[in-house]
Amino acid sequence: MKIKINELKSLIINVLKENYSQEEAEKITEVFLYAELTGKDTQGILKLFGSEPAQNIKPKYPPKIIKETELSVVIDGGGAAGPLVAQVATEKVIEIAKTKMFGITATNNTFSSVGAISFYARKIAQNNLIGIIAASSPRGVLHHGGIDPVYGTNPIAFGFPTMKHPIVFDMATSAITWYGLVRAKALGQNIPENVAVDHQGNSTRDPDIAMKGAILPFDNSYKGTGLGMIVELLAGALTGASYVFDEGDWGTTYIAISPELLIGTEEFKKNSSDLILKVKQSKVKEGQKIKIPGYDKEIEMARLIKSGEIEVEDKILDSLRAL
Amino acid sequence: MKIKINELKSLIINVLKENYSQEEAEKITEVFLYAELTGKDTQGILKLFGSEPAQNIKPKYPPKIIKETELSVVIDGGGAAGPLVAQVATEKVIEIAKTKMFGITATNNTFSSVGAISFYARKIAQNNLIGIIAASSPRGVLHHGGIDPVYGTNPIAFGFPTMKHPIVFDMATSAITWYGLVRAKALGQNIPENVAVDHQGNSTRDPDIAMKGAILPFDNSYKGTGLGMIVELLAGALTGASYVFDEGDWGTTYIAISPELLIGTEEFKKNSSDLILKVKQSKVKEGQKIKIPGYDKEIEMARLIKSGEIEVEDKILDSLRAL
Repeated sequence: MKIKINELKSLIINVLKENYSQEEAEKITEVFLYAELTGKDTQGILKLFGSEPAQNIKPKYPPKIIKETELSVVIDGGGAAGPLVAQVATEKVIEIAKTKMFGITATNNTFSSVGAISFYARKIAQNNLIGIIAASSPRGVLHHGGIDPVYGTNPIAFGFPTMKHPIVFDMATSAITWYGLVRAKALGQNIPENVAVDHQGNSTRDPDIAMKGAILPFDNSYKGTGLGMIVELLAGALTGASYVFDEGDWGTTYIAISPELLIGTEEFKKNSSDLILKVKQSKVKEGQKIKIPGYDKEIEMARLIKSGEIEVEDKILDSLRAL
Repeated sequence: MKIKINELKSLIINVLKENYSQEEAEKITEVFLYAELTGKDTQGILKLFGSEPAQNIKPKYPPKIIKETELSVVIDGGGAAGPLVAQVATEKVIEIAKTKMFGITATNNTFSSVGAISFYARKIAQNNLIGIIAASSPRGVLHHGGIDPVYGTNPIAFGFPTMKHPIVFDMATSAITWYGLVRAKALGQNIPENVAVDHQGNSTRDPDIAMKGAILPFDNSYKGTGLGMIVELLAGALTGASYVFDEGDWGTTYIAISPELLIGTEEFKKNSSDLILKVKQSKVKEGQKIKIPGYDKEIEMARLIKSGEIEVEDKILDSLRAL
């Protein structure tokens, strides 16, 4: 069913106001709407349902800065939903890097994931900065060679300004997301081959067994494991959040770098746009397309925003209206 | 054949003195020796042979700083061999980050690869800093969905201090290195399946056909392509070096971040050591082992250095002595 984007926005904000102020609810809603507009729908409205609905996460206190230097802040999330704390940390890292040319912010004491991590990388890039974001989560992924889950699904995101749209790339360092398991279990479906093992390390396609076993690194090699470990170090060990944990607090690190430190902002944007052009000139296999991450999605997003309407599954919309 | 490490060192330095000063030759040799000591032997003595022997790369002028801010420098490599310029850039980024808590340096106008990229990440980590390094190279790797080579094999490296040895992780973003193709061709061997395609995008195991076609991203998916693109942006577009190129200059970017900006250095080192401990407690499959990148190699390296001797293939040693 089509719904006016503004109406959808109001619906989400109203639900979130259960435990959040209008301003806070708006910040969280912005992230969920972005997920819907870019087709990352598991990071959108669905966050209001399931076992940890965002509106039920009652913060103990608003996010507060607990350490500050010229180039950095550490933010105690007060137990709030991830997207609220992430918005605060992103605004702060942009503010610092705009004057100092570099900024780094970290969050701990946050409950739940930050949602669509590319949202924040895009925001940094829209401010003519290069963004790097690493986010940790409870353990579900094994270390290559091991059997037990040790790392979270640990996404990482990068944002780069260009002359036009930002390039925004994000990926989980796991072969399947935790939500991928939850969803398959709920629908009674198998998970793909070679994405998870049981608690003895044997390959499984049963999501329930995988949840009690472990997810593989995305490429089932030492490379994916190395990247998963790096996210655990940057987002967990460096932030004061938990690491290699079941129950604990999720950490995230935000880095913003101005191209002024090196080649210069205008020059970099010229180069990054030119790089896209060169890559897009590549021959493709029949039926294939060169996709520039984030960059190519902006066109569809702009079209949706201009139309003022978005398609949402009837069942989900009904459930949202009933909340 | 076993050879005294000091003798091997002198041999390499003497060869390099063809086009480099004693001090420069020592800096380059340090990188090659590290490669030999850590078993990355394609990045060691072999760099003195083949189509681009390091000692034959005659710099036009010594590396020089062409842009400088409080937090950064851009270095024009003067057309020197990669490892020399990389050493200068690494020393500089450490110097900056030790006083400013963050530093970023970039190099352009460099001829040849920086060699074992983990060497520099390790050096940064040994100075209680977190290191991130991205290095670009001539195009050989396709963008997922495309056929033509656009990115280099584009390695990326990370270094983290711990209470003991540094964690050092590095990886090529390609499924096989360029040297892997060169070696297979020289030995008349096939390359593994699913690492390269011919110029029409069909899978090939012939290294010669692969060289005229393209290498795949390491996981043959959009994730590996995204990471390859990010290295091309950071090391090429941001540094003033070439990008998406055949002939041109290789660029590298070095980032150093002090944990003092966030949780604090001592606290971070405690956490990173604890994280390793937790990961190592994981059950493993029979015959498998949990390997912590870089960290576990330090023990073997220390043993070799203590013994004062290293094993080098007879043929290679003879060739080295004949240079």
